[in-house]
Amino acid sequence: VSRPSAPSRAPATAHDVARVAGVSQSAVSRAFTPGGRVAPDTRARIVAAAEQLGYRPNRLARSLITRRSNIIGVAMGYLENQFYPQALEALSRRLRGHGFQVLLFSTDPGNHADPAIAEVLQYHVDALVLASTTLSSRLAADCKAAGVPVVLLNRTTSASGVCSVTGDNAEGGRTIAAFLAAGGHRRFAFMAGLENSSTSRDREAAFTDWLRANGLPPPQRAVGSYDFAITMQATRDLLKRKSERPDAIFCANDHTAIAVLEVIRHEFGLRVPQDIAVVGFDDVGAARWPSFSLTTYSQPIDPMIDGVVDLITSLLGRDAGRARHLRIPGELVVRGSTRPAPGCREVEGRTVWRP
Amino acid sequence: VSRPSAPSRAPATAHDVARVAGVSQSAVSRAFTPGGRVAPDTRARIVAAAEQLGYRPNRLARSLITRRSNIIGVAMGYLENQFYPQALEALSRRLRGHGFQVLLFSTDPGNHADPAIAEVLQYHVDALVLASTTLSSRLAADCKAAGVPVVLLNRTTSASGVCSVTGDNAEGGRTIAAFLAAGGHRRFAFMAGLENSSTSRDREAAFTDWLRANGLPPPQRAVGSYDFAITMQATRDLLKRKSERPDAIFCANDHTAIAVLEVIRHEFGLRVPQDIAVVGFDDVGAARWPSFSLTTYSQPIDPMIDGVVDLITSLLGRDAGRARHLRIPGELVVRGSTRPAPGCREVEGRTVWRP
Repeated sequence: VSRPSAPSRAPATAHDVARVAGVSQSAVSRAFTPGGRVAPDTRARIVAAAEQLGYRPNRLARSLITRRSNIIGVAMGYLENQFYPQALEALSRRLRGHGFQVLLFSTDPGNHADPAIAEVLQYHVDALVLASTTLSSRLAADCKAAGVPVVLLNRTTSASGVCSVTGDNAEGGRTIAAFLAAGGHRRFAFMAGLENSSTSRDREAAFTDWLRANGLPPPQRAVGSYDFAITMQATRDLLKRKSERPDAIFCANDHTAIAVLEVIRHEFGLRVPQDIAVVGFDDVGAARWPSFSLTTYSQPIDPMIDGVVDLITSLLGRDAGRARHLRIPGELVVRGSTRPAPGCREVEGRTVWRP
Repeated sequence: VSRPSAPSRAPATAHDVARVAGVSQSAVSRAFTPGGRVAPDTRARIVAAAEQLGYRPNRLARSLITRRSNIIGVAMGYLENQFYPQALEALSRRLRGHGFQVLLFSTDPGNHADPAIAEVLQYHVDALVLASTTLSSRLAADCKAAGVPVVLLNRTTSASGVCSVTGDNAEGGRTIAAFLAAGGHRRFAFMAGLENSSTSRDREAAFTDWLRANGLPPPQRAVGSYDFAITMQATRDLLKRKSERPDAIFCANDHTAIAVLEVIRHEFGLRVPQDIAVVGFDDVGAARWPSFSLTTYSQPIDPMIDGVVDLITSLLGRDAGRARHLRIPGELVVRGSTRPAPGCREVEGRTVWRP
């Protein structure tokens, strides 16, 4: 393919493309704008001219005119937990389908994402998605003042103007409590995530409340802070007093449930589920691996990401400023890390508990 | 904190900040440019004025003047393989330390990244990093014409002007062959990744060449395409003919080595390493989990990411257009998935093979 007019440093402009295609400059602009209206044959002429000239529309320059960068800032950390890479891949694909690109910021899961966010705002992103992290109420106010909608994923907040998408943490916590009780367990433990995480708190509260409401003893409590090594140590501490050993451990997520399983089997030589049952939350890929075969309450990635994208598009449209909190339902997926209980059934290739 | 001059839709300009701080507009600009020179007390006055006015410098607008967007496009897929999320997190942090941000593109590992790249070029990125994917020679030429340096991570290419950072695939393949032979193995197999991946090809060629050069039988070959389910099926096919069963399997990466381990143990009831030894490549986090305890040739993330960032900064400076290929050395990390062989030693808390 010959490119007569594309030397390395003097790029073709929309004006050049318009001239060669015999159309207006605004038609060229619409042809390269996601969702822009151009007649099919006009579009074909424009694309052919752009190819011939080596034209690349400058999205950044356009953002100064449209006041839309088509960039969504995503702050995410804790990629060690499979849930987040899975979510990131799905989010990136879905946003791209809507003409958006992802500007990614790594953040520490335990901290506010403020320093990274302050930088991302300089890129005039259209919206912000925060996963595995949170932001201070001050920065939430800054985003609001700047007209940048914020959507939390897998966290929630009462901060004004901030939307969120979470799994059904309360229903999950209650269902796990009821399932373990139905399996005959009486000595419960909860392995908490980060203490400042709404997700871990909501799961624990529902689990504990159900046990109390049903006259069962409250769970022992250990804190793994969502960290593999910290969770292994917390599990050792939990199991070393034989007389008080739990017979069922509910972990704040699958990633740390795997750490708990490893210590139970490989350090204490105990059997799962005969000696201790283990339940996680998320249903990540590794939960299905035969070595773990983890019973877990699912957080279905695709509906959660659909929720994030729907919130973003509606916040950028007529729902600007309206804070909404979406809760995506899950299922208790039953595998080998728990004793059987009545009420299990096969649904779409998985065993789920629907008593 | 009161903000007298920050209404939601009329943002403060650099001019406003300069006026309040009593400095020139170019001092404001330098204060918000990574590496820009400003006296400390001047910077403090500017930051205070910017805080007071709610000023956000527009990085996109600046990119039109400086011809630098400070954005690096990163095309990555296959995030299911822990190596990539680990690399992405490290890359994002290191680039941010150099004043760059990451525009992320999800791509399918088996395909060229061309459609995503064509979009990313519209954002006038300063450079492109491609991981777990590759690009056509046509698009490589387009990037060259546009003056956008390309760095491949964990892949290499002979395309002109494209740089790469890989682990030491050849040394790794040879070392694994020598280690398995030293452990007394004689019936080898190689579980390939994607057939078009330079990484899988380079590992296999070195493994096979070493065996041939040392008078040992060539390995059987199975193809897992870097996919967990496909690798499980390829392992079943490999193991079902008892008479030809391998006693050592080298897998193109750790992610698929785990799939091989799962089938050996949980479907065939065979022991690892007594019946079959398994070796991976990467040394991802899960290789250390006691359930797998995987022997593997390491690809150290931090030096690899340092290499990518060094290449980018030098390509944006005086080394523009010079294609370099960095090969980062690794180690054979010995764990429980292989029989012992003489030559192992403890180094920094790991057992490595240095015969």
